[in-house]
Amino acid sequence: MLYPNNIKKNFTKINNHANRGMDLEYLLEITNQYYIDKDIAYIYKKPTPIGIVKVDYDQRKILEAYFQKPSTLDYNGIYKGYYIEFDAKVTKQKSAFPITNVSSHQITHIKHILKAKGIVFLLIMINDEYYVFMGQDFIDFINKNERKSIPYSYIKEKGYEIKYNFTKGLDYLQVIDKLIGE
Amino acid sequence: MLYPNNIKKNFTKINNHANRGMDLEYLLEITNQYYIDKDIAYIYKKPTPIGIVKVDYDQRKILEAYFQKPSTLDYNGIYKGYYIEFDAKVTKQKSAFPITNVSSHQITHIKHILKAKGIVFLLIMINDEYYVFMGQDFIDFINKNERKSIPYSYIKEKGYEIKYNFTKGLDYLQVIDKLIGE
Repeated sequence: MLYPNNIKKNFTKINNHANRGMDLEYLLEITNQYYIDKDIAYIYKKPTPIGIVKVDYDQRKILEAYFQKPSTLDYNGIYKGYYIEFDAKVTKQKSAFPITNVSSHQITHIKHILKAKGIVFLLIMINDEYYVFMGQDFIDFINKNERKSIPYSYIKEKGYEIKYNFTKGLDYLQVIDKLIGE
Repeated sequence: MLYPNNIKKNFTKINNHANRGMDLEYLLEITNQYYIDKDIAYIYKKPTPIGIVKVDYDQRKILEAYFQKPSTLDYNGIYKGYYIEFDAKVTKQKSAFPITNVSSHQITHIKHILKAKGIVFLLIMINDEYYVFMGQDFIDFINKNERKSIPYSYIKEKGYEIKYNFTKGLDYLQVIDKLIGE
C-alpha cells in the first residue's frame, strides 16, 4: 500500500473525486491479490512517480517531493504468457467519459502496446458500473470522432461490464479470457 | 528521470555503491529509450516505491516520505508480444555475486513470472562487465547450492555478456532474440 490508512482517510475528506479513484484502486488491489494468491496472474500497480526535491541522506528520508503524472498506464503484468496493461479511470459524469482523463502520453503508450501485440485496456467506472474498454476501441473512437468525450451508451455497447464480486473484486480477466478465446 | 541532476550528484558523493547502480540505470535508460524510439520494445523502469507519511494537500506536496524496497523487479514491458521483466544488479565483489542482492520477495516474484511463461532475468554488472543472467538459471542455482553467492565463473558460463554500445547502451534484447529463436 502506497498510503498509510490515516493518509487515505484524509484524501477522502479533502477530495471526493480522488476518493472515488481510490475506491476503484482498492477493489483492484483485492482482485490482483486474488490473482496472485491463486497463481492466476501477476499484475501490479506501478508506484506513483514522485519528483524528489529534497532528501535527508543520512536518514534516507524525503523532505520535499511532488506527485508526477505517469506516462504509461498504472497496472501491468503477465497472464498466461500475455502482456497485460491497463489503467483505472473514474468519472463522475453520467452521460460520457471525458477523453482528457487519459493523458496524451498515455494515449501514445496505448498505441505502442497495441503495436507490440500486448493486451491493453481502460477499466472505466461510470454511473457506479465498471467496464473493460479495450485499447483498440478507445483509439478507434479517438480516430473517428471529434468529440472530447465517449458517450456512456458507446461504452455500454463496446465495453464489457464487470460486476463486483466479494472474493474477486473486479474480475477483469474473465473478459480477457473471452477475447483470448476468440 | 526520478531524480533531478543535483540530487543525482549528491548521491554520487555520498554513496559510491549506489552510484555504480545509478551508472547501470543510466545505461539502461539509454537502451530503453533507444528501443522506444525505434519501435522495438516498450520497457520501462518502475518508479521507486515511496512510503508517504506527511503531505501538504493544498500544494499536493510531500513533506515526509521514505524509500521502500520493491517486491517485483525494477523493469518490465513488452517485446514482440513477449512479457519481459528484469532487474539491474551491481556488485563490487570480483569473485562472486551475493544472492542477498536479490530480496526474498524478488526471488518469489521471479518464480511467479517463470510459471506464467514470462521472460525474466537479472542484468548483472560484475568486474565492469555486463551479463544477462536468466531467471531460470538463477532459480536453479539457488535450488542446487547452499552457497550465498554465485561465483563469477558461473555467471560467465551461464550468463550472456553484453558489450556497451554508444548508441544502444546495453542492448540486452539481442540475447533475448537468440533465446526466443531457440
